[in-house]
Amino acid sequence: VFVLGRTYEGQNCSIARALEVVGERWTLLIVREVFNGTHRFDDLRRRLGVARNVLSARLEHLVGQGVLERVPYSERPLRCEYHPTPMGRDLLPVILALMAWGDRYLTDPDDGPPVVFTHDPCGRDLVTRTVCSCCGAPLALEQLTARVDHAG
Amino acid sequence: VFVLGRTYEGQNCSIARALEVVGERWTLLIVREVFNGTHRFDDLRRRLGVARNVLSARLEHLVGQGVLERVPYSERPLRCEYHPTPMGRDLLPVILALMAWGDRYLTDPDDGPPVVFTHDPCGRDLVTRTVCSCCGAPLALEQLTARVDHAG
Repeated sequence: VFVLGRTYEGQNCSIARALEVVGERWTLLIVREVFNGTHRFDDLRRRLGVARNVLSARLEHLVGQGVLERVPYSERPLRCEYHPTPMGRDLLPVILALMAWGDRYLTDPDDGPPVVFTHDPCGRDLVTRTVCSCCGAPLALEQLTARVDHAG
Repeated sequence: VFVLGRTYEGQNCSIARALEVVGERWTLLIVREVFNGTHRFDDLRRRLGVARNVLSARLEHLVGQGVLERVPYSERPLRCEYHPTPMGRDLLPVILALMAWGDRYLTDPDDGPPVVFTHDPCGRDLVTRTVCSCCGAPLALEQLTARVDHAG
């Protein structure tokens, strides 16, 4: 079962640390939109319908945390685009897992999922699955046993 | 590539809808803690170190959205525990994906991940992988093509 030892400290947890970086509504939507090919401030603002000061603060945060990086596209005046770093790109499984959950529980039954991905290598509509990388089995809560390696 | 059509509406997106439900720091930490076997208000409050009014509001929200349900454990006085619904249990891949990302990028290199899961069926330390359920391949941003099925 999914049980932790008594030395467990609620906040010494990779989930808590990850949420410090991406645990706010706009943050993951910005990352999604950058994945989606929107790299410039005004385009992000328009696509997301987010206030300028909020977007500015969240982008600053994401750059500071190493999730996005600024890439100049004009020298004079200096203008930058936002691109995902390797750390940012590795948020893909988080975003796809969240999307799969939203598709399953939060779409109108009549409409189906608003966006569907094709997985190019196999040509099928993408259905993501989270598995054990060792045995390949899908994961169930009852089949995980936690241990605390480090008191932190 | 991860490109959407021009009819795409920023907010008509399962990620956005999912973040409406779980896109706030405490929300996913509460779900994590309920997964972890903490079901009662005072225990949740203590383990998470969260203010009573914040916890109360987030639990109300999670119950209202169908992620958690109240299960009575005492009749007189009436007291309830919080348990995950099937919808709540299906957040496991989201939480594990977020944890894997935090483990990779946000732990102290000297310490390693604060919590490690054993995957009971295979007996190995869990390393989660998000794959295409059709062909089993790990997912890469460049290999996904989005299409918008519904203008929503």
